[in-house]
This record gives sequence, structure tokens and C-alpha cells, in this order.
Amino acid sequence: MKLNIALLAGDGIGPEVIDQAVKVSNAVAKKFNHEISWTPALTGAAAIDAVGVPYPDETHEVCANADAVLFGAIGHPRFDNDPSAKVRPEQGLLKMRQKLGLFANVRPTFTFPSLIDKSPLKRDRIEGTDLIILRELTGGVYFGERGRKDDGDTAFDTMTYQRFEVERLARKGFEMALKRGKKLCCVDKANVLEASRLWRETVQALEKEYPDVEVTYEFVDAVAMRLIQWPKGYDVIITANLFGDILTDEASVISGSMGLMPSSSVGSKVSLYEPIHGSYPQAAGKDIANPLATVLSAAMLFEDLNLTDEAQTIRDVVNKSLAEGIVTEDLADGGKSYKTSEVGDWLASNI
Amino acid sequence: MKLNIALLAGDGIGPEVIDQAVKVSNAVAKKFNHEISWTPALTGAAAIDAVGVPYPDETHEVCANADAVLFGAIGHPRFDNDPSAKVRPEQGLLKMRQKLGLFANVRPTFTFPSLIDKSPLKRDRIEGTDLIILRELTGGVYFGERGRKDDGDTAFDTMTYQRFEVERLARKGFEMALKRGKKLCCVDKANVLEASRLWRETVQALEKEYPDVEVTYEFVDAVAMRLIQWPKGYDVIITANLFGDILTDEASVISGSMGLMPSSSVGSKVSLYEPIHGSYPQAAGKDIANPLATVLSAAMLFEDLNLTDEAQTIRDVVNKSLAEGIVTEDLADGGKSYKTSEVGDWLASNI
Ligand SMILES: CC(C)[C@H](C(=O)O)[C@@H](O)C(=O)O
Ligand SMILES: CC(C)[C@H](C(=O)O)[C@@H](O)C(=O)O
Repeated sequence: MKLNIALLAGDGIGPEVIDQAVKVSNAVAKKFNHEISWTPALTGAAAIDAVGVPYPDETHEVCANADAVLFGAIGHPRFDNDPSAKVRPEQGLLKMRQKLGLFANVRPTFTFPSLIDKSPLKRDRIEGTDLIILRELTGGVYFGERGRKDDGDTAFDTMTYQRFEVERLARKGFEMALKRGKKLCCVDKANVLEASRLWRETVQALEKEYPDVEVTYEFVDAVAMRLIQWPKGYDVIITANLFGDILTDEASVISGSMGLMPSSSVGSKVSLYEPIHGSYPQAAGKDIANPLATVLSAAMLFEDLNLTDEAQTIRDVVNKSLAEGIVTEDLADGGKSYKTSEVGDWLASNI
Repeated sequence: MKLNIALLAGDGIGPEVIDQAVKVSNAVAKKFNHEISWTPALTGAAAIDAVGVPYPDETHEVCANADAVLFGAIGHPRFDNDPSAKVRPEQGLLKMRQKLGLFANVRPTFTFPSLIDKSPLKRDRIEGTDLIILRELTGGVYFGERGRKDDGDTAFDTMTYQRFEVERLARKGFEMALKRGKKLCCVDKANVLEASRLWRETVQALEKEYPDVEVTYEFVDAVAMRLIQWPKGYDVIITANLFGDILTDEASVISGSMGLMPSSSVGSKVSLYEPIHGSYPQAAGKDIANPLATVLSAAMLFEDLNLTDEAQTIRDVVNKSLAEGIVTEDLADGGKSYKTSEVGDWLASNI
């Protein structure tokens, strides 16, 4: 099979972790007789520096014409504490999600047998956790009108949802649930927000089409609590963009390391795969970042292209590296640790 | 001292837990020679059933003329799954916060030595946690314009903040930090939201007035993670209404039980004290709910009226009850447990 993958390294540790995912993917391609052609393109602060905008049209062309997009991370501290910055790396991410029609962010949460004791949570609370958060990604307060009034003294953002946006996400959730634990939890704040009431209404109307799925409705504040108390209670969670942003990061705590969690963003023709961690600027250029989340994102990419054995090969070699302690310093517990590039090399050569 | 306290029991387990806080407060008043006059008033679903609205004017009068308000909980499942309900118990809570000018919700998070092993989090991660989340309570998306368009197919809510709203909350945060660990963390989503950028701008402008406070800015998604990974890293957190709703519930996990965490809501003349848990309808009327969060809320009430010894007396007797295992079933670990009313009686008689 010939694969054409857009490669968006982005900022901070993005380029370093992406490099390892490329090595591993190439090794898998070789083993299974595929040919991958990688097309790099600019995004984030790197794109702002080079061409003035965080998601250039050329980058969009590259992505739109690819079979899939592999993405690193974007964001740079120089923009974060400057409330008046006009162009921001994050705008590139939002524009990309919107222009590529990536309306659903899929974030699995699971534990790694060899790492379970690294979690801040007790073993009996998390062992066996297997949940997916499906976050709406192209609507809500991320994309509503925003601005200032009263000489800049009043700021507003608008949280908007349309019925079709909720419905297409919810259907994905129902379908996922059918293939898994058959439980769907709609997370909202319907006791306060009108947009949440539209969510609840829309999901309720779909219930009868999926009689085999058990549906529950919970408030986001309660879920922020229960997700930590008893993550095994959840199977598939569907939620709005902002709530999903918060809950998916929170859920990453369960596995013990953000450096391990992959994600995919899907919706239309092309899908995007990225680690859930950010650009981690403090570590940039030091060859110390954990590449596994990006490597496992590549596994999701293969899986979605129905290359199941290829995906499993990646997961197996990752588990092997963890079991044998071939890990970056964040997982080394003060013991022997390896560089980002060394972990990538080890994985590639063990495939 | 003569104290006039408004008593808003509310819904679900509200009346049961409030009863115990009254018993304990009366015992303390007796011991220290105070006189408390309690004025009960209707709120929540109970008020809707009785008079059609969740925060009647008469209730507001009672609160506005009291020295403080002790509040139970409101909410009823019969409204939650009815997206079209016109009147909701929660509206009473929001109206009350607004009309009483309670713009800051103060939620301390700490651990109880005798309960630390009940937390889903490992002991070394949480022992010694002592943080306060200061949640903005009368602004943001809770109070902005909301509604439907396009025949009901589009729903919107507006997140609005004015500079003075941020400033008054931030000042409270700085002042609290000065009396504690001297660290303030402003939690927002300034990489996306305009309202968050106003927050950041406003807090940045205040920094020079409080040179002894170390200020940091973090994104809400990252904090949802770090709060669980390393809660000891925080001292005072200030944040917007919706973020605070989510983060305060999440933080309650640290102590191991929501049934223990008190809160106060302050801002203008009268302050309000309430447990952070909700109305817990499944337990209503069963005399099994944990009354300690409400009892400890009464301790906060005494503290704020500068009745420090009275407050400490309550905290001491609560710790004693925990140490001696005089607890409701949620804390009994399958061992001997006591009824809500028995715990209240024990506390009152041990003062
Ligand atoms: C960088 C930021 C805009 C982004 C988001 O909030 O969506 C990130 O936190 C994420 O979750 O992908
Ligand atoms: C009941 C609900 C409206 C309320 C809120 O969201 O403010 C509650 O969750 C709280 O935190 O006091």
C-alpha cells in the first residue's frame, strides 16, 4: 500500500517526538511492504515565524490531499502571557480543525500494566480502565463570536451549538459504544446552559435508534470528580469542545503520564493523529521528551486505515520498551533513562 | 453575642444535614454564651412546589437581613432530564448569589489525617494539601445572555466578564495569598477565550500592588491535570465561574469525600455557608447523608464573624468524631456506621 502522510511537527518538542514516530512508522511500513511518503508542512509558532500565519494555505493543501495527518504540538510561551497578541499559534490549530472538518476528537484512556504504579491514583481504582472521551472539536465557545465592548473593559465569548453538530458527534459516540461496552454518557451543564440543554435534547432523541446502548446524562462538575474516583464506571463519554478539553487532560492523569496518551481527530475525509501533550517548551531541543504518545498516535493512524496488524506491531513494541525500561527520564524513576532519539531508534530496530 | 442566621435547607438531603449543623451550632452558642435565632426560608424545588419560584422575595428578605446564611443544597432529578422545564431549582441558587452579591466562592481543599487513606489518590501525593479555590460566582457564562435561534436548532450562551468583576475577585485572591503561602495562580483559557485574556490582563495589572505574592498563569486544562498530580503545588487559585465549578468539584476528590468539604460565598454584607455536595436525592429522607460538610460550613461561618474559638471547637469535635469512628456509612468502610442524626447528636453532646 502507498501512503501519503502530511507531517506537521509544529513547535517545542513537536519536531523531536514526530521524528521518532516517523522512524517507527517507516520500520512498520518496511516490515509490511508499504511505502510511506511524508510531506512536511509548517504550523504553529514555527509557521508564524516563517510566513506570518499559524496555518498557511499551503499547509492546508498538503493536509487536504494526504491520506492522514501526523501532528506534533503547537504553542509558545511568548504568546501566552501577551493578552494583546494578534496572531497566536493556537489559532492555527483551530483553523486546521475547522478547515479539515475534524469535528470529533477521540481520546482513549487506558493504563499500561508496567506503569500502573506511576499513576497518582491507587491501583485498585484504575486497573482495567478503558474509556474513550469523544470531544466535539469544531464548535462551541472555541468558534463562537468573541470580542470586547466598553473600551475594552468587557470581554465576551459565545458558546454556540447547532443541532446537527451535536447529532453527528452523538452518532459517532453511539456507534463506538455499540462496539465496546455499550454505555454512553453525555456530559454537559444542562442545569445552567442552553447549549447543554440542546445537547441533552438531541441525544435523548437519538436514544430510540440505539436501543442496545445504555445512555446516562451527567453534569460536567460531577464527572470531573467521578472520573478520578471511579474511571471504570465510564465507557464512551461525549461532550462539548470546552468540557472535553478539560476532561481529556484530566483523564490523562489516570494512566500516570501525559507523555503516553495518543489521540485522533476525525470527521471528514482526512483524519489527524497527535499526542495529547502540548509543546512543552522547557524541554524543546533537549532530546528528553517522551515520544510514546506520538508513536501511539501513529498506531491509531494505521488502525483507522484498517492496517490492524501494523497498529498492533507498534503497540507491542511500545509495551516491550516499557517492560524493558527503555524509557525517557519522565518514566525512569531516577533509574537509567534514554534520550528521545534513542527510544525511537530502539523501537524502530525492534519492529 | 446575638446572631440572626437565615436557614435555607433546600432540597434532597439538605434538610437533614442542615438539622445537624443547627444542633452543633446551638451547642457551640450555648458553650460560648451566644444566642442564635434561626429564620428558616424556602428555596429550590421545595420553594417551586410551595410558591412557584425557586428563590421567593420573602426568602431574599430573610437572607438580606440576616448576619449570615446557612444553606443546604438544591436540585431535583425531576428537572434535570427535562430540557424544556421553564422553572428550575438551580435558578434560585443563581438568583440568590446575584441578589446577595456573593461574587466569590471560597472552597478550601485539605486532607483529614484520619481519612487520608480513603482518597483515591496516593498518600504521598496529597498529604499536607492546603489550597483554596476562589471561584467567581456572579458573572461569566452563568449570567450572560442565552437562548435559541433557528426554530430552536441553535442554542447559545454568552460568557461575559467585566474588568471590575475580575479585579474585585483577584484582589480577594491576592489578600488571601498574603495571609497564606503567598502564591496566586490565575486559571483561565487565555489561548482561546477573550474573557480569559481580560482576566489575565487584569491580574497582570494588579501584580505590582502585591509584590510579595508570586503570581502564575495556567490554562484550565493543564490545571485539571496538575490538581490531581500535585495538589501541593497550589496555594490560592482564582478562576472564572464555570472553570471554578469544575475544578472545585474535582479538587474535592483529594480529601477522599465530598461529604466533608465546606464552602463560603462572600462579597457584600451577608455571606453564605454551604457544603459543596449537592442534594443527593437518592439518599433523601433516609437519615444516611454525611452532615460533616455542613457542620464544617457552620465553622466557616463562625470564623468569618471572628468567633475563632467557636469555629475551632467545631473543627475539633469533627476531628474527634472521625478519629473515634462516629461516622455515616460513606466513611464506615463496611464497619459500624451511624445515622445522620446520630452523628449530629454525638457532635453536639461532645462540645
Ligand atoms: C492549544 C489549545 C488551543 C488546544 C485546545 O484547547 O483545544 C489544546 O489544549 C488541545 O486540547 O488540543
Ligand atoms: C447547581 C449548580 C447550578 C451549581 C453551580 O454550577 O454553580 C453547583 O454545581 C455548585 O457548584 O454550586
